[in-house]
Amino acid sequence: MKKVRNSVRLPSPALLFFEDAIRANIDMAIKIAGSPGRLRPHVKTHKTAELAAMAMARGILKFKCATIAEAEMLARAQAPDILLSYTLVGRNAERLIELVLKYPHAKFSTLTDNLEVAHVLNTLAEKAKVKLGVFLDLDVGQHRTGIAPGPDAEALYAYLSAAPGLSAGGLHCYDGHNHQRDLRERQAAAAACYVIAADFRTTLLSSGLPVPEVVMGGTPTFPCYASRQELTLSPGTCFLHDYSYASSFPDLRFEYAAAILARVVSRNSVMGTFTIDLGYKGISADPKGARGFLPGYEDSVPVLQNEEHWVFTAPKKGLPSIGEEIYVIPTHICPTVALYERAHIVDKDGVCFTEWRIACRDRSIGI
Amino acid sequence: MKKVRNSVRLPSPALLFFEDAIRANIDMAIKIAGSPGRLRPHVKTHKTAELAAMAMARGILKFKCATIAEAEMLARAQAPDILLSYTLVGRNAERLIELVLKYPHAKFSTLTDNLEVAHVLNTLAEKAKVKLGVFLDLDVGQHRTGIAPGPDAEALYAYLSAAPGLSAGGLHCYDGHNHQRDLRERQAAAAACYVIAADFRTTLLSSGLPVPEVVMGGTPTFPCYASRQELTLSPGTCFLHDYSYASSFPDLRFEYAAAILARVVSRNSVMGTFTIDLGYKGISADPKGARGFLPGYEDSVPVLQNEEHWVFTAPKKGLPSIGEEIYVIPTHICPTVALYERAHIVDKDGVCFTEWRIACRDRSIGI
Repeated sequence: MKKVRNSVRLPSPALLFFEDAIRANIDMAIKIAGSPGRLRPHVKTHKTAELAAMAMARGILKFKCATIAEAEMLARAQAPDILLSYTLVGRNAERLIELVLKYPHAKFSTLTDNLEVAHVLNTLAEKAKVKLGVFLDLDVGQHRTGIAPGPDAEALYAYLSAAPGLSAGGLHCYDGHNHQRDLRERQAAAAACYVIAADFRTTLLSSGLPVPEVVMGGTPTFPCYASRQELTLSPGTCFLHDYSYASSFPDLRFEYAAAILARVVSRNSVMGTFTIDLGYKGISADPKGARGFLPGYEDSVPVLQNEEHWVFTAPKKGLPSIGEEIYVIPTHICPTVALYERAHIVDKDGVCFTEWRIACRDRSIGI
Repeated sequence: MKKVRNSVRLPSPALLFFEDAIRANIDMAIKIAGSPGRLRPHVKTHKTAELAAMAMARGILKFKCATIAEAEMLARAQAPDILLSYTLVGRNAERLIELVLKYPHAKFSTLTDNLEVAHVLNTLAEKAKVKLGVFLDLDVGQHRTGIAPGPDAEALYAYLSAAPGLSAGGLHCYDGHNHQRDLRERQAAAAACYVIAADFRTTLLSSGLPVPEVVMGGTPTFPCYASRQELTLSPGTCFLHDYSYASSFPDLRFEYAAAILARVVSRNSVMGTFTIDLGYKGISADPKGARGFLPGYEDSVPVLQNEEHWVFTAPKKGLPSIGEEIYVIPTHICPTVALYERAHIVDKDGVCFTEWRIACRDRSIGI
């Protein structure tokens, strides 16, 4: 873990992004995909305009996001192609149309797995006199959202293709259930998902329905799909990377590009514990298990975590001093980033030189 | 659960605060304490200037908080007495002094459990020509931070009393380990904590050291300490209340004053599941177990939660419709509030009429 040379000026806890590691991770993703045009990275991990701009500077022009605020952040960052890969209902569906009208330079799409939402989107789009791209959310086995391939899915896709306010964008096939540690097992599982998507695509094409794009794969599986040239790939976590993915998927050679700077606020030599100023308001409590990894304190075991405190047993080398700086690699970076209003940006020499706003941790920006 | 009459204009997920329930909870806390002057409520739960102002309008003038931003929010809200009950090290200690200088109308205190921090605070305070109140953080059994009673603690308190830049504020004795469901068991545990604090206070007083204030008790135990007239009481969660406290402490008769409005975005009749737009970026993942309670869907079991999705088994009455509104009572309201940039305020007639900013979910406001 790179240490920050001017850390004394930082409050704690502080979210750190390492600029050169981010750039290396973007380049690694492009290398795996074969070209930047194959990528549609998910911005839910970093939620920042600056990281999106770094990706655009490398030729990545298509993005994926999960909220209206993330879509608006991308539009403001001049992203030309934005897929809001989430079924929008109620007020959120209206907000999407407002977004389309407010940012005409961007091509917006969304997705759905049901006719009710498709009808609503069409009505809203027709009323606003816009043409809205809508992907079909195909369930390839995660069972979180998505419609299984079959007649209902074909009918839904046909509706998306024919509705006057809509334009069928293609298929969105997220396989978040594929988290096999062994790469060959993961590849086999991804191949099975691919067959489901490819067969359904063939069915649609043979019915004369256009399928402009098929989006598949998160960070663990996008390398598995990279050879399928008709796919675009949508990793997210790998641009910052985290302890969970590094330990679960040793084949992924991304660098840690984010960490949290915390400090020791208490030590108890009787109990043999020390306490840092990083609670679950500063590091995600999901998933279960250890919430972060402390380089240099591998033998310290978490005893208790509350909102702003985290207590550990003493390391063998002895209790750290009051005020000592502790670097923490979050187990899950995506929800952790969303707990901060800013990231402190560290350059290749370990100098913290600027800040980026975690712009779309807010659920609304302008809309 | 009160339904919002004009919910159609709300995005989802949306954090709701019910104004009349908040007022009832403030009044209940004052009734338990005997008078508003006995209370030093913790603002980490709601993080809003408006709720602090409601408390001040009822005569509560002392507050407790855990971060510099929470302290600054209170200062801007004109709170006259602010205890930042957290040991501040490094840059955060400097920030506290900047806060004291920037808001001279407010009386600020902090706490510590060690001489290192006390020395730093004294040096900073002397340099800034201010007198900083510092409480001694007494460990009454939680072992999170705090110093055990004894000669070291006495020496620390003597230092706080004598240091030219400091003023000994008294004792802070948090008993977060007392979460016995049975009220009598909790009362007995609290009584044992009280004895530790009272004995140490007597020792200090008999040494001629002033102990202006002793702060004890969170939401589960502040009623247990209410009869001890020399204590001030610092509940936090009860002003909004949540499912964990309601189910763990049936003797606490506070009302649910916060909920999240979510909507059904997907239904799967084959799997027998439905999915709402509330993931762990919108409801806290701590503590372990169910993350929220869905009135009307008591027989639905959570299957999967990701960042923006939550999948449940179908209720016996059948799958809800796409777009249906679901009200969720968070298991743990404090970290949940911190996930939102605003709360939508609902009046006694169920009309959402304004918004409050969750001002100090940001870790810095002006300092």
